[in-house]
Amino acid sequence: MNYKMLLNVIGKILLVEAVLMCLPLIIGFIYGEDTYLGFVIPIACLAAIGLPAFIFPPKDKTIYAREGFVIVAFAWLLMSLAGALPFVITKAIPSYVDAFFETVSGFTTTGASVVADVEIMPKSLLFWRSFTHWVGGMGVLVLVLAILPDYNAGVMHIFRAESPGPTVGKLVSKIKFTARILYGIYILLTVVEMIFLVCGKMPFFDAVVLSFGTAGTGGFSITNNSIAYYDSTYLEMVIAVFMFLFGINFNFFYLILTGNVLGAFKIEEVRTYFIIVVIATLAIAVNIISVYGNFGQALRYAFFQVSSVSTTTGYATTDFNLWPSFSKTILLALMMIGACAGSTGGGLKVARLIILLKSAFAGVKKMARPRTVTSLRFEGETVSDSVLGTVKTFFILFIGWIIISTLLISIEGYGDIETNLSATIACFNNIGPGLGLVGPMGNYGGYSDFSKIILSINMLAGRLEIFPVMILFSPSTWKRH
Amino acid sequence: MNYKMLLNVIGKILLVEAVLMCLPLIIGFIYGEDTYLGFVIPIACLAAIGLPAFIFPPKDKTIYAREGFVIVAFAWLLMSLAGALPFVITKAIPSYVDAFFETVSGFTTTGASVVADVEIMPKSLLFWRSFTHWVGGMGVLVLVLAILPDYNAGVMHIFRAESPGPTVGKLVSKIKFTARILYGIYILLTVVEMIFLVCGKMPFFDAVVLSFGTAGTGGFSITNNSIAYYDSTYLEMVIAVFMFLFGINFNFFYLILTGNVLGAFKIEEVRTYFIIVVIATLAIAVNIISVYGNFGQALRYAFFQVSSVSTTTGYATTDFNLWPSFSKTILLALMMIGACAGSTGGGLKVARLIILLKSAFAGVKKMARPRTVTSLRFEGETVSDSVLGTVKTFFILFIGWIIISTLLISIEGYGDIETNLSATIACFNNIGPGLGLVGPMGNYGGYSDFSKIILSINMLAGRLEIFPVMILFSPSTWKRH
Repeated sequence: MNYKMLLNVIGKILLVEAVLMCLPLIIGFIYGEDTYLGFVIPIACLAAIGLPAFIFPPKDKTIYAREGFVIVAFAWLLMSLAGALPFVITKAIPSYVDAFFETVSGFTTTGASVVADVEIMPKSLLFWRSFTHWVGGMGVLVLVLAILPDYNAGVMHIFRAESPGPTVGKLVSKIKFTARILYGIYILLTVVEMIFLVCGKMPFFDAVVLSFGTAGTGGFSITNNSIAYYDSTYLEMVIAVFMFLFGINFNFFYLILTGNVLGAFKIEEVRTYFIIVVIATLAIAVNIISVYGNFGQALRYAFFQVSSVSTTTGYATTDFNLWPSFSKTILLALMMIGACAGSTGGGLKVARLIILLKSAFAGVKKMARPRTVTSLRFEGETVSDSVLGTVKTFFILFIGWIIISTLLISIEGYGDIETNLSATIACFNNIGPGLGLVGPMGNYGGYSDFSKIILSINMLAGRLEIFPVMILFSPSTWKRH
Repeated sequence: MNYKMLLNVIGKILLVEAVLMCLPLIIGFIYGEDTYLGFVIPIACLAAIGLPAFIFPPKDKTIYAREGFVIVAFAWLLMSLAGALPFVITKAIPSYVDAFFETVSGFTTTGASVVADVEIMPKSLLFWRSFTHWVGGMGVLVLVLAILPDYNAGVMHIFRAESPGPTVGKLVSKIKFTARILYGIYILLTVVEMIFLVCGKMPFFDAVVLSFGTAGTGGFSITNNSIAYYDSTYLEMVIAVFMFLFGINFNFFYLILTGNVLGAFKIEEVRTYFIIVVIATLAIAVNIISVYGNFGQALRYAFFQVSSVSTTTGYATTDFNLWPSFSKTILLALMMIGACAGSTGGGLKVARLIILLKSAFAGVKKMARPRTVTSLRFEGETVSDSVLGTVKTFFILFIGWIIISTLLISIEGYGDIETNLSATIACFNNIGPGLGLVGPMGNYGGYSDFSKIILSINMLAGRLEIFPVMILFSPSTWKRH
């Protein structure tokens, strides 16, 4: 383990966080709030810890796969530990565990909240809360790669450990360039959404903050009943469409921007994602006609919720907890699948779903005709045994993690199986609201500190796709050999 | 596809079923019931269809893997379709779909019932219902192999398709001999249980029928509140211990009978199974102390239910639906895992769990140190890539099947998520009772015919471990090439 390099990268991340915290500090001054201490103290601490690392770079800059995972896991943990301070210092969220939960939920773009009444929270803290979504959505280390001078080839390991999906870095070969393109697309789409929302007469502050939540597929809202507060079909549809867009593989936008529209629509994952969203929307709309009286209204609520849940954002325009169990089961299944790889969304990812299903069907065929030789193809290319192996390992860990975590948070006896299972899935897949007591009109405040920490680890494990967190806690990582 | 051979084997199976049906016919005469037509008619039909197949054997006896799967799937489907007739003819279960559900539930050793009041059912039908458990537990085709003259080497494919677990036929190399040993152990254990039960003053009929249910890990009871009816700690413990025994890999008993006790206790799967049962029992016992007042009583109910659920039997001594959600979640997890491979129990199987977990941890290690070469070992041997691939394919299908089936049975809007999810898991893994409306004191009668058929397919797919059912319905199986 190259500890000096580890400290150096983490120092830089903390410095970046200090810079990012200046934004809510400014917002606080603009709105005349007395929250400045809540930001100044953490900024000073982060700078004091981060600056030495920045000034004294290590001689040996080698990073192996192991270091990549450990750096990413540590960076996210420390960022969340520090990011929770403004909430505690300003007493907006007095309990540190609660504030940590809320911050992890922000950075991991989960959007699960322990705050029952968000409307009384100062604007600077609401801004910080949603801004963490935007920062976490694309990845903090990607941000560092995009703005800081180049590292050696080892940064690929960091990039790979932080980016969602089975394969990454296909956009262009140069990783730094890739990171800048990703952030370019990300900023562009976010700004366009803000403009659309402001055009729909949404207050400017709300438009900015909700766009952060959409872009990062986070889902923190600044009203107690989420997007239902605005009661506007236009605003709902703008948000629904942008949630949908941010759930798409960013390769799609890159191809469109470079004029290859045909190529963009040929991406297998994107097409499957379209089909999933359309089928789920129609199935739910038909199922909830009786709740809303007519198909039009049913379609409106169904599309918003499918878009919100399948991109793992978590905004709500209605209490889907009250829907029939068929619709709720569809939502639970969408929560598991999640968005496209290479988007800001969480979950298993559509790409992995495709690879798993193809491999399962190939397996059945092989049972029937043992001598057939089949090769698995995805996006027009043969899937290597190594990628296939990793996807399957991921799936086993994914299911195992959900079962163990559901068991752990049920020890305290707070929620029923529906609540605990959906809470785990909603946190692990970075959605936010679940079903039952943690439904869109409920919150996670009722869980004990133990369960909140378990759910926080879930959010981190889900956002970083399990491996970094498991490698961080694996004893063999820290053995010298 | 060798259709002649397919017809021949299936004809023989139907003949065997006709012979088996003579037993409840005799029981009916003994108890002076007028149910004889219910058995005589199906026996005549089965004989009329089966005899020609028996008399005219095909010239080409070759069976490939594909034929093996198709024969097994067809045989189980036809046996269940015919086995439902006695219930319909005697009007014990007037609806054919209900009777089919009950019979599939019997043969697949599920034990899920649509009958609200079993106590008014004639004894001959109660016998037939539980006898199907006993026949289905060890496998009908294994029975055929054990008693009929030898086929060629192709029968291995049938044996493999019907027997639970990732690898089979390790007992002794000669398959016919293996089948006889399995049935020998099976009969011996069943008889010993009967004796123990009768010694505890259980009526003889009840002892026979409940032993069938235990041996097959089925779980049909002949009283409306299952084993709680007898209100005897002795009888409960006898049944709990025998359920536990029938969930063990039969290799264990073979080794013990041949004097290799040390070797028996060295079986990795058996040791893991022991550990799972002990930990689950203790965890539940501690969790339900408040329900039963003291640890002794809590332990009694916990051990019985853990033994019942983890072997996928499904007997109950208490309404575990009323337990805290931690205990219910443990039971749901045990339902998924199931018993040992090579036992009569269902579920994912402990062997597969071990292989999956080992491969997942090896995968995590490989992510951290990509250049390490690791080989997966199970029961002291290296797991081949082909076995590993099949186990992983099975797991993907296993999880996918549960999600899709839960979605399908939730369309009608009868149960909530807990009911529908647990109903699927309980049927697919051949347990019987689930949670919510299908809990141990409830039944499956409230579902629509559509959902009952879906759940019946679930039971068959679970018992035959998915592949035969998927291959039966796969278009490529029926292509000529």
